Amino acid sequence: MSQSELRAGIDRLRALAPGLHDRDFLLTWRESETTLRFLLAAAALLEEMHRANLSARLFDTGLGLAIFRDKSTRTRYSFKSACNLLGLGTEELEESTSQIAHGETVRETAAMIGFLSEVIGIRDDMYLGEGHAYMAEVAASLAEAHSEGVLAQRPAVVNLQCDLDHPTQSLADLCHLVRLFGSLEALRGRRLAMTWAHSPSYGKPLSVPQGVVALMTRFGMEVVLAHPEGYELCEEPLDAARHHAMQSGGSFTVTRSMEEAFAGADIVYPKSWAPMAVMRERPKLLRAGDRAALAELEREALANNARHRDWECDDRRMALTRGGAAHYLHCLPADVTDVSCAAGEVSRSVFERARLDTYREAGHKPFVIAAMILATRFEDPAAALAAAVERARPRRRR
Amino acid sequence: MSQSELRAGIDRLRALAPGLHDRDFLLTWRESETTLRFLLAAAALLEEMHRANLSARLFDTGLGLAIFRDKSTRTRYSFKSACNLLGLGTEELEESTSQIAHGETVRETAAMIGFLSEVIGIRDDMYLGEGHAYMAEVAASLAEAHSEGVLAQRPAVVNLQCDLDHPTQSLADLCHLVRLFGSLEALRGRRLAMTWAHSPSYGKPLSVPQGVVALMTRFGMEVVLAHPEGYELCEEPLDAARHHAMQSGGSFTVTRSMEEAFAGADIVYPKSWAPMAVMRERPKLLRAGDRAALAELEREALANNARHRDWECDDRRMALTRGGAAHYLHCLPADVTDVSCAAGEVSRSVFERARLDTYREAGHKPFVIAAMILATRFEDPAAALAAAVERARPRRRR
Amino acid sequence: MSQSELRAGIDRLRALAPGLHDRDFLLTWRESETTLRFLLAAAALLEEMHRANLSARLFDTGLGLAIFRDKSTRTRYSFKSACNLLGLGTEELEESTSQIAHGETVRETAAMIGFLSEVIGIRDDMYLGEGHAYMAEVAASLAEAHSEGVLAQRPAVVNLQCDLDHPTQSLADLCHLVRLFGSLEALRGRRLAMTWAHSPSYGKPLSVPQGVVALMTRFGMEVVLAHPEGYELCEEPLDAARHHAMQSGGSFTVTRSMEEAFAGADIVYPKSWAPMAVMRERPKLLRAGDRAALAELEREALANNARHRDWECDDRRMALTRGGAAHYLHCLPADVTDVSCAAGEVSRSVFERARLDTYREAGHKPFVIAAMILATRFEDPAAALAAAVERARPRRRR
Repeated sequence: MSQSELRAGIDRLRALAPGLHDRDFLLTWRESETTLRFLLAAAALLEEMHRANLSARLFDTGLGLAIFRDKSTRTRYSFKSACNLLGLGTEELEESTSQIAHGETVRETAAMIGFLSEVIGIRDDMYLGEGHAYMAEVAASLAEAHSEGVLAQRPAVVNLQCDLDHPTQSLADLCHLVRLFGSLEALRGRRLAMTWAHSPSYGKPLSVPQGVVALMTRFGMEVVLAHPEGYELCEEPLDAARHHAMQSGGSFTVTRSMEEAFAGADIVYPKSWAPMAVMRERPKLLRAGDRAALAELEREALANNARHRDWECDDRRMALTRGGAAHYLHCLPADVTDVSCAAGEVSRSVFERARLDTYREAGHKPFVIAAMILATRFEDPAAALAAAVERARPRRRR
Repeated sequence: MSQSELRAGIDRLRALAPGLHDRDFLLTWRESETTLRFLLAAAALLEEMHRANLSARLFDTGLGLAIFRDKSTRTRYSFKSACNLLGLGTEELEESTSQIAHGETVRETAAMIGFLSEVIGIRDDMYLGEGHAYMAEVAASLAEAHSEGVLAQRPAVVNLQCDLDHPTQSLADLCHLVRLFGSLEALRGRRLAMTWAHSPSYGKPLSVPQGVVALMTRFGMEVVLAHPEGYELCEEPLDAARHHAMQSGGSFTVTRSMEEAFAGADIVYPKSWAPMAVMRERPKLLRAGDRAALAELEREALANNARHRDWECDDRRMALTRGGAAHYLHCLPADVTDVSCAAGEVSRSVFERARLDTYREAGHKPFVIAAMILATRFEDPAAALAAAVERARPRRRR
Repeated sequence: MSQSELRAGIDRLRALAPGLHDRDFLLTWRESETTLRFLLAAAALLEEMHRANLSARLFDTGLGLAIFRDKSTRTRYSFKSACNLLGLGTEELEESTSQIAHGETVRETAAMIGFLSEVIGIRDDMYLGEGHAYMAEVAASLAEAHSEGVLAQRPAVVNLQCDLDHPTQSLADLCHLVRLFGSLEALRGRRLAMTWAHSPSYGKPLSVPQGVVALMTRFGMEVVLAHPEGYELCEEPLDAARHHAMQSGGSFTVTRSMEEAFAGADIVYPKSWAPMAVMRERPKLLRAGDRAALAELEREALANNARHRDWECDDRRMALTRGGAAHYLHCLPADVTDVSCAAGEVSRSVFERARLDTYREAGHKPFVIAAMILATRFEDPAAALAAAVERARPRRRR
């Protein structure tokens, strides 16, 4: 992309006031459409700057802090890449090697790790009813510490996946769709099937499908959610999806049939998640340390999953989509039949055709996170990015 | 703070020659008063620069290395923040994932991790008689490797808590007092009660009270140390405290009564630590792998602690202090009664009033560490900081 | 080194085209002599720049990623130092805390961690037949992802030790020899004894001796490999050594006698490694989870080692070398008799004389790795380094 194209991108950014300065990014449905449009545009511009070997370093010093309460390769890497892209050093708060496990309150810890931090990225997706609450508590503690003069700056909390939403994933998915279809407007009227799919594991969080239906309904898409009985999602994102569909002129429907969801779809997103009852029960058993009951719960959950082995995205079902050529989305890693398991979310042939595209989909995530940091930490983020474009400093010097 | 105020701060720094270049910072009582005044002034200036969004990046590249032999959230974060503030990348030497546990000598490892390092921050506070000795050995190895041309630069060792002293904590405490009372001179004649307090845990290091009494006696304060029988501290810092009190015109007394210490105090620092006998015995038993004896030692120590459950900083005792309004200090995390435990160091109401102030106290630590790095790594640290003030480069670009 | 000497060094670099741009560095014997000469010269220059306090920061942002499948202190630190020296942030992919262990394919992971990475350093030396294959697979995956537009840049894979070669070690060794003997040409005709030595541990990788014989034969040295029966090395590096010796006018011989190898040697490299049969058997048993057979294998291997306790580099054997004064090399940590074990690779007196020199030998490694990053990531690496010399920006500002 040329310098003048980049400047045009900056001009489009200037027209969108994200309103995130000194705030957090926790749930897409609590943010305005303008905010989301800003993030999409900023992420795209940062990606173009990266491809053009232009430095987007906006911080001379400063820290991004990661707190992961669950395993993660790609989101962890994405967060750290995003921090690095803007010039922030990164540190990780490992709870097992810190004193957090020893009676510190969230309030205190938040202040202690905030003195020189610009952003705190948190993944906490294991227990229903807890992840978002924890992030909100950290954010409130940071806000108090800042307003009381304890912290010289107000670090932003960025949700790297909670029990309700996975905004850096759903926005990366949306970036990908914008690129595939040409523009956000071109998505209007497109049919997206967010469907449950079979997996030999259990206990996968609900936040990806929740985040997808709540976000994609906002831009006039026709979103169909499909899952077997017992795999219901949380009310808050479903309410958001219904409300968004009504406002945007799109639609949001729920069905028990994978075929019905696939019929005529432009985009399919087949993905396993845990039964709601399991997600509700597990935190209690874990806290009680009841191993026998946990083993029994796992056994039940897997038996439940096994009754729906036929929920696989295979060639037969892909043939039902528009022109038999729907785009396949996945947050990765996918459970691929005959590759990573015996009976998974997607057949080998469907996945192999889509494979490189799922990598491209994932590739937007570092830039989405960087856009969130930009929008939360800069009073005038478009001006800050404009200055970087004008400096035209190479990322890798020649 | 305006540019001219920052320049006045630089001028004050120029008058103080810290004498730490190419040396280490291990124990406050081995350093001159001028050195300590420099560190306090430099830390305050770095903090003002941070609040003014002025970059203090003095290293284009270089590493700060952390070695933590004990759990830590806040000191770990403080060290890494301090490195980042000055432009150093950070790495951590995790002994469990390295070959150190496999027969390498300290001498060799010190050289191996020193090639591109500017500073090595070490926490080793678990065993009496060992932490400081280990740091001194690392420092001697680095000095040898540097003088023999193995290392192009001489990395500084910074004590992030040993068995004898916790200088980054006590200096952060002192920064806090300077801010509360207006100046270092204003502390003259102030009464500080460093007292033992009850905790449901055992085995807390002695280095915080030792560091506090050895440092605070230096500036004309009247320091009272209070603890039950059996909770004596090491001789070296106590000797230093007596010597400093005599030299500075302050005083240093020891008592067995918390009330006596609190009476008329301007500042109270109630904090639990382990019985001396336990600290002496534990390393031997650990090395012998004698689990039964360790369990018995823990049982005894807790039984001992339990006899002093009344050593709590509560409203009744706070009423004994000057005007009933002494400043409460703590290195955090505190054991707060009815919050983190049933019977702790401080009552809920006392702690809640002081809570935000303890956060502010902790907030000086990254800047104290940065001041130590500045003083050990730069031949003329005031000039290096002056240049950063003149460059006036924003930390977060706008 | 003065600015004009540095410029002369740059001029020597310009004459050597490394041909590594957008490629990997995996095995020295797959690279041309010019490539190796470039790396040696660039490493030396980077080291001089470091000593002259000149910044070699060539990246404004970007990441170096480490994947360690074995314990490591010095190579891990060297890699991270090298990244820092050039301006790259570093992250580590810890497989235990990531989702890699959960069915992700190498292909997918490589893309996921490549979006903003410039270099991926891998250590995978545990199992014969696997380490190099894994690195090659990662490299092929990165190449595919780059050519398909998934990755904006092609991250280089740098071999930080595999089952076949340990190029950053052997090149650091060679840097050391160049410094000891004055030039690469001065090594012609020098006799180097790469010999097995006794160790109380077993299972040490074969890659160090393999890398050393394959590399040192390239520059006209007379290389003698000595080991007891059963401690043979892999064919590929031995073939390379024979071929190189023929081409360079040096020689390569194998003997069963440590004394024969030491006789008249200018350089000795006594180092333990595992019996070939053990290295072949272990992966199978580990995969089968056959603990009894593994214990039996270890018992056998140690019994085997014990039969060769006399393979120690002691004063008596050193007396056999040229003038009794051969240079002693080791990759560290060495098993030193009466220091780290009862009967090791080298006697205490021999090691103590050589100790500081082995540290100097190790000190070249960060710069060798930095040279590899420079050569793989820059189209014209000499020009990039020349620009850094001309900028003359201090690493530590004064």
